[in-house]
Amino acid sequence: MTDITVAPSRRRETTRAKLFEAAAQVFAEVGMDAASVEMICDRAGFTRGAFYSNFESKDQLFLELITHMTEAKLDEVAVRVRAIEPGEIADPAALVHQIIGVSEGAGMEPQLVSELRTQALRDPRMAEAYLAWHDGIIGRVEQIIDEVTALHPVRLRLTAPQAARLLVDIADDTCVRAAIEGCSRAQTEELLKERLQQIVVALVDIG
Amino acid sequence: MTDITVAPSRRRETTRAKLFEAAAQVFAEVGMDAASVEMICDRAGFTRGAFYSNFESKDQLFLELITHMTEAKLDEVAVRVRAIEPGEIADPAALVHQIIGVSEGAGMEPQLVSELRTQALRDPRMAEAYLAWHDGIIGRVEQIIDEVTALHPVRLRLTAPQAARLLVDIADDTCVRAAIEGCSRAQTEELLKERLQQIVVALVDIG
Repeated sequence: MTDITVAPSRRRETTRAKLFEAAAQVFAEVGMDAASVEMICDRAGFTRGAFYSNFESKDQLFLELITHMTEAKLDEVAVRVRAIEPGEIADPAALVHQIIGVSEGAGMEPQLVSELRTQALRDPRMAEAYLAWHDGIIGRVEQIIDEVTALHPVRLRLTAPQAARLLVDIADDTCVRAAIEGCSRAQTEELLKERLQQIVVALVDIG
Repeated sequence: MTDITVAPSRRRETTRAKLFEAAAQVFAEVGMDAASVEMICDRAGFTRGAFYSNFESKDQLFLELITHMTEAKLDEVAVRVRAIEPGEIADPAALVHQIIGVSEGAGMEPQLVSELRTQALRDPRMAEAYLAWHDGIIGRVEQIIDEVTALHPVRLRLTAPQAARLLVDIADDTCVRAAIEGCSRAQTEELLKERLQQIVVALVDIG
């Protein structure tokens, strides 16, 4: 019985996943402006009908793609944060290193975020979607910060919302600058850890 | 005698100033991608020859335009920082407010910086110019920080280069986000002061 309801939803998920993958490839090759719904559908092997039954527009697909990518990263971070032992909090630098350490890191994401931001500066509809995405990430980081400060004897020199926005902005700037410098994924990861460590250590008083 | 050498250089300055003004107008109307050298020359009332004897390309003009704008702002900030009286340093929040306060603030700059950054992510030649511009601003802010810490009894919780990069990135992020939110120039100025204040207060130990 359940097959009837589960199968379409699973098929839908598979379609969306294939469209995400195709969009990421097309984006990497030609950028967001030149990427068309046709190109993405051709790459994924779907019709335009399949596309539009899943996404309103190309822009919406790209926004969902970065939402998907950043949420996956923040979920990993949240799991690692929950595993912090009481004694480990005394060395925030080592902790940041460990928490960011295993994360998937930055691939085409800085390019994509930068293009979406440039679009959002021009187009009010994109602006709304961009702000919702940005607020969503900041809110998620704020939750993570709240969990840490509730469980461990640390005092932040900023409020949780201020610290969350600072960390999100700095992570983004660091990845964008690394991409402009032509850094590899591993180098970007290293720069990101180093910079977040600096800032967390400066902003946290222990005990 | 001096007229012969001074006049061409002054004329050159006037030409460049008119091209900057025209470029800013054209950019605000159509964005950087759609803006062409022809459109900028038409608006300024110059030939393409006059353009290319002053700038290598449209991209170079836009980069020099933001360099010009950010340097003018940082010169204002440097003057105000030098006027800090010994007693005033005890209230860093008020100081930041006063130092940023009179600044010209953000007009079309967030849009332009965002487009240049997106270009730099695609094009290695633009990347080099963008990195030189970014490093230039960070270096200038670092000098200002060094002056403050040499003259006043403040301790930073980051090194001067780290703090400079943080302030530059945060100022940029705040102006871009404000522009996406559709804030006026005055609102952006207010948000910028508030955010830099927060961060400076968190990063500075007095005495």
